[in-house]
Amino acid sequence: MHTTLTPASSGAAASSALFPSNRTRPINVAVVGCGYWGPNLIRNFSTTPGAKLMAICDLQPERLAKFKAQYPTVETTSDYAALLANPELDAVAIATPVSTHFPLARAALAAGKHVMVEKPMTATVAEGLELVALAEVNQRVLMVDHTFAYTNAVRKIRDMVASNQLGELLYYDSVRINLGLFQSDVNVLWDLAVHDLAIMDFALGQTPVSVSATGHAHLKGQHEDIAYLTCFFESNLIAHLHLNWLSPVKIRRTIIGGDRQMLVYDDLEPSERLKVYDRGASIEELGAESLRRQKIDYRMGDMHAPYITPGEALQCNTAHFIDCIEQGRTPLTDGQAGLRVVRILEAATESMKRRGEPVSVF
Amino acid sequence: MHTTLTPASSGAAASSALFPSNRTRPINVAVVGCGYWGPNLIRNFSTTPGAKLMAICDLQPERLAKFKAQYPTVETTSDYAALLANPELDAVAIATPVSTHFPLARAALAAGKHVMVEKPMTATVAEGLELVALAEVNQRVLMVDHTFAYTNAVRKIRDMVASNQLGELLYYDSVRINLGLFQSDVNVLWDLAVHDLAIMDFALGQTPVSVSATGHAHLKGQHEDIAYLTCFFESNLIAHLHLNWLSPVKIRRTIIGGDRQMLVYDDLEPSERLKVYDRGASIEELGAESLRRQKIDYRMGDMHAPYITPGEALQCNTAHFIDCIEQGRTPLTDGQAGLRVVRILEAATESMKRRGEPVSVF
Amino acid sequence: MHTTLTPASSGAAASSALFPSNRTRPINVAVVGCGYWGPNLIRNFSTTPGAKLMAICDLQPERLAKFKAQYPTVETTSDYAALLANPELDAVAIATPVSTHFPLARAALAAGKHVMVEKPMTATVAEGLELVALAEVNQRVLMVDHTFAYTNAVRKIRDMVASNQLGELLYYDSVRINLGLFQSDVNVLWDLAVHDLAIMDFALGQTPVSVSATGHAHLKGQHEDIAYLTCFFESNLIAHLHLNWLSPVKIRRTIIGGDRQMLVYDDLEPSERLKVYDRGASIEELGAESLRRQKIDYRMGDMHAPYITPGEALQCNTAHFIDCIEQGRTPLTDGQAGLRVVRILEAATESMKRRGEPVSVF
Amino acid sequence: MHTTLTPASSGAAASSALFPSNRTRPINVAVVGCGYWGPNLIRNFSTTPGAKLMAICDLQPERLAKFKAQYPTVETTSDYAALLANPELDAVAIATPVSTHFPLARAALAAGKHVMVEKPMTATVAEGLELVALAEVNQRVLMVDHTFAYTNAVRKIRDMVASNQLGELLYYDSVRINLGLFQSDVNVLWDLAVHDLAIMDFALGQTPVSVSATGHAHLKGQHEDIAYLTCFFESNLIAHLHLNWLSPVKIRRTIIGGDRQMLVYDDLEPSERLKVYDRGASIEELGAESLRRQKIDYRMGDMHAPYITPGEALQCNTAHFIDCIEQGRTPLTDGQAGLRVVRILEAATESMKRRGEPVSVF
Repeated sequence: MHTTLTPASSGAAASSALFPSNRTRPINVAVVGCGYWGPNLIRNFSTTPGAKLMAICDLQPERLAKFKAQYPTVETTSDYAALLANPELDAVAIATPVSTHFPLARAALAAGKHVMVEKPMTATVAEGLELVALAEVNQRVLMVDHTFAYTNAVRKIRDMVASNQLGELLYYDSVRINLGLFQSDVNVLWDLAVHDLAIMDFALGQTPVSVSATGHAHLKGQHEDIAYLTCFFESNLIAHLHLNWLSPVKIRRTIIGGDRQMLVYDDLEPSERLKVYDRGASIEELGAESLRRQKIDYRMGDMHAPYITPGEALQCNTAHFIDCIEQGRTPLTDGQAGLRVVRILEAATESMKRRGEPVSVF
Repeated sequence: MHTTLTPASSGAAASSALFPSNRTRPINVAVVGCGYWGPNLIRNFSTTPGAKLMAICDLQPERLAKFKAQYPTVETTSDYAALLANPELDAVAIATPVSTHFPLARAALAAGKHVMVEKPMTATVAEGLELVALAEVNQRVLMVDHTFAYTNAVRKIRDMVASNQLGELLYYDSVRINLGLFQSDVNVLWDLAVHDLAIMDFALGQTPVSVSATGHAHLKGQHEDIAYLTCFFESNLIAHLHLNWLSPVKIRRTIIGGDRQMLVYDDLEPSERLKVYDRGASIEELGAESLRRQKIDYRMGDMHAPYITPGEALQCNTAHFIDCIEQGRTPLTDGQAGLRVVRILEAATESMKRRGEPVSVF
Repeated sequence: MHTTLTPASSGAAASSALFPSNRTRPINVAVVGCGYWGPNLIRNFSTTPGAKLMAICDLQPERLAKFKAQYPTVETTSDYAALLANPELDAVAIATPVSTHFPLARAALAAGKHVMVEKPMTATVAEGLELVALAEVNQRVLMVDHTFAYTNAVRKIRDMVASNQLGELLYYDSVRINLGLFQSDVNVLWDLAVHDLAIMDFALGQTPVSVSATGHAHLKGQHEDIAYLTCFFESNLIAHLHLNWLSPVKIRRTIIGGDRQMLVYDDLEPSERLKVYDRGASIEELGAESLRRQKIDYRMGDMHAPYITPGEALQCNTAHFIDCIEQGRTPLTDGQAGLRVVRILEAATESMKRRGEPVSVF
Repeated sequence: MHTTLTPASSGAAASSALFPSNRTRPINVAVVGCGYWGPNLIRNFSTTPGAKLMAICDLQPERLAKFKAQYPTVETTSDYAALLANPELDAVAIATPVSTHFPLARAALAAGKHVMVEKPMTATVAEGLELVALAEVNQRVLMVDHTFAYTNAVRKIRDMVASNQLGELLYYDSVRINLGLFQSDVNVLWDLAVHDLAIMDFALGQTPVSVSATGHAHLKGQHEDIAYLTCFFESNLIAHLHLNWLSPVKIRRTIIGGDRQMLVYDDLEPSERLKVYDRGASIEELGAESLRRQKIDYRMGDMHAPYITPGEALQCNTAHFIDCIEQGRTPLTDGQAGLRVVRILEAATESMKRRGEPVSVF
């Protein structure tokens, strides 16, 4: 799935042309949108090796002024078209509201720029399909910023799944709740579930076949602020996401149950982010009879909390984007990954409107 | 809803006849079924004022022998029919597998005994309707042991809702997961969701109109071991229950969001079982704009953890049953309450079979 | 230190005479004192194999009446002398105020009874020496109920120390605080520090050479309710105990730092009572330079929480007492262990009076 | 204690001369030392209103080069004498090893500069006395960076103590442990206890009369890495600090017990940094009898967690320094406060050498 671009199929030649080995200048990047998330991109691209933060683009002059003061050598502009017209610009990183991802990314790809776009990649599957096609045709890197895929904790989870340490996957169960409506243009699924769907896409190696979602919009005229999403798979796996913008407490806890081991991933726990629980036998071996009516209050085996190296995901993410441009590689979280997540979000939103009626994903 | 029986409608006269004020002996109770939960009933009825633990009934002789040693003066028997034929017996408390609740309770009511039955009250709505009708006709107390309704924490929650301290209810959100299959005859909804449905029935003052449920049975030939249940109401309230028999960690946490305050009820937290969060303004007053894009990481106002008096729920529960018999009162958790919960469980099971398709409750 | 009694030195012959192999009756035990802790002894001796709870002795008739109702076949008495005069009685378990341990235990040993006495064993070192000598002379078992030594968690710690898994011991650091004055006749050291001193005596294999203690009595005319105790050893080990009867929160957390691994033992943590932390290198290998100014926020290696089998310590404790009587064995927590703990408590109380001035222990 | 400088006694005239009301330029500040803590000062002074970060001084050229890249307009220098000779420079902030605080601060004061110095202010009481005298004579602001005094949590604690909300203070009990030797030139008392002593000096309104300290240096030739410090007061208050550089877990928890309320301040708890516990009655009213042998497991009254406004202490700290310079005010944490803390540290180090022998502070 995450293959390297080969010369025949996707033009390493073109890449080579763009970035000849004797290239001496860094990749010039513009960050588009500097509201909530953009400042992180600005900060990270300004220190990513091989990258040069060339420009910052936003429609609000006061935001631009603030960053101009901090980064006096960086160009600030509200004219996106002019920015794209600059042949010195190699790539854009888009951190604007979801509804604008598509037109901004399409324009950038059309102008021959590499594109990194915030999650969710687009507001619809149709838009996503078009971006993926355009990137393919134009031989440009299209990367979606599925940030969690670049954290050490999620990479560790992916390794545990891939090496079959957990055994057959039984469930993925995530609670992602906090106080604060961070998005005005999308519902809580597109704002919060997108993180779990990106983690699942990256780490589980399976894709849902259908979904059932429920939710509620408590504020008149606003999007759903609470949502629950079940994903069905062809295998024995079931996934459930639990999203809430109106929670008095902040929780970021994912439980992944396997046939051999189970893990709890708590992203707010500073010292024991991952806990892996042994059971000593598979569920099948234990059998229903031995599990039945046992007063197993807490656990049956040892627990192990592997050390997770600290490090900011985004730094790794921006470095990966630059590396993919330089080496002509397909990103770990490419347009296809972005599209798979958008497919689920679109189906889930449809199901939520019908109070949980199952909707096929593909 | 929780009215006292009046003379005209439900026979205080009959009650009076049964328990004349000059009655000098205690209420004679038999506990039926002494597997997982029965021992708690035995222990509590043996010390409930006004009650006398007269008999223990179970089909397994070794269980009976064990209790005979501990309670030498209590009759132990495997003959339920003979037990019911004893005119000295006033009441039975039934703690057997769910599928047997109905025949055992029906026989007891038919024999003129008062009945306390474990949750869920019956395995079907039809059975529940019949029990309720029979208790009404025979003027006997029919109480379902919705244990949590008798805890000080849940009573406090009920008071907070009733006094409008939380404001308009926005959501009820519960995670009830642990390791261990405690039931062979029912799925995880009937085993675990029943607790939340009983709490909701007791404390929220609202009844769901439809449900959507999803789940999965990971062990071949067994019931669903994971389930997710959304309840829709006519109001702005949405409820969601999260049940899992295969979790590596034990969690019992309920969040109730109101327009004014929100509370977190953690039944495993020894010292701060209830936490109540202020926001200083209603959600409507705050408005989407002020909540939007605020980096509200944790909370906006004070938190208050009211002192919850310790005390075992079941003691209070058995005392309430005896009191209802003596005073001819309707239990707080009567047959109607038991029936309301069974209606939801039946609809949820139906929805779960259809992968989340919404099913009407009433 | 914890050797089995040999025939020559300590009279297995005498033991054999007392308990001939053809003995068919259980060991008859009397529990003396049934206030705070006694009921636990009563409950456990009533189900300990090989033991028979023969009598309960207390000065308060209402307490005796309560237990008579629960254990109708057990003798209840206020006449300790008469109890000891009964040749059928083999052993007494003493759970009275500390100041009475000595006279009660001395009388029992003098009467040829085996003795289990609550911690601390005696109120002074002089008393402890006399009890130990008397037990030796009379060839009777003298066991101090250092309860924690019989828990699975502390046994696991002892194994880890003994097998050098932790490496050279660097520190033992315990916080044992809660709300409530449980003792009127002793200060908080004798009430709470005794637990840690018993754990240290059992698990660390080292004995302090001197102590420094500080504390304060906040209530006029009462004993110290807060105390801090440092124990100095001949080795590189330092121990510190932190005791408080006036804490708003309950904490029972011990950290044991070793040169190779460190562990946190939290007795209130239901699922992860022991956590063992790796460092990947010894402190000496790491060296001051590598540790210096590192921003090591949380940890450097994996954490492992071994599964601790549930089980009540006291059941194991009473069984061990019976076993020692039957087999003529020296208890794991014998009179010498009790005496070592009392030596430290006496020295600590002396140091506390002098505001921390160091006091030699032996 | 924290009075404003008055014209007569301390030269508002001089201040006025230095900073005439028509002054139009900001206060020029140099940060001296940019190792562990200095970068925080640099970052904060660069955005403190009324301040201009004029220069950064360090002996290591590579450090200076790094900051020059980040702050191209700021002067970087290794020549402290030349820096002080610049009449444009108004103030220095010193974040160098403790042993150098005194010579650097003395030179700056002698050169007529205002001085902010990291905690602990000096390495000896004698040095502290000299700095205080010099600042007084030269009419310059001498502020010690007791950072915690500028946090919202500690300010809230100070308010609660000052308003007698806690009642009579009974104890201050702090555990401040983590992994990592942050200092090579001082022991763990001077590195970690200094924070608690600064908090106590700021919030409690009482000063210890004597101390008893114990500790141990586990690494050959290094300073003590573990220390325990008891402070005795003339009142009913006792304080105890618990410091450890070799802990596998990081803890920052302070319990302050008052006669009326008690609070737990956990600096690592993101959402409930302060918890205040009611008891409903004073300790004196409750009396020993009612507290005795009560099985008070956790608590007796409500708990309240006041909302603590987020905000970085240091920003407030640097702003306060600038404000004191501009307005001729005495800092909340002035040289006298720094000196009081150094007095305790000096006495504690002396006591620690004598294994806990009490040492008088003043």
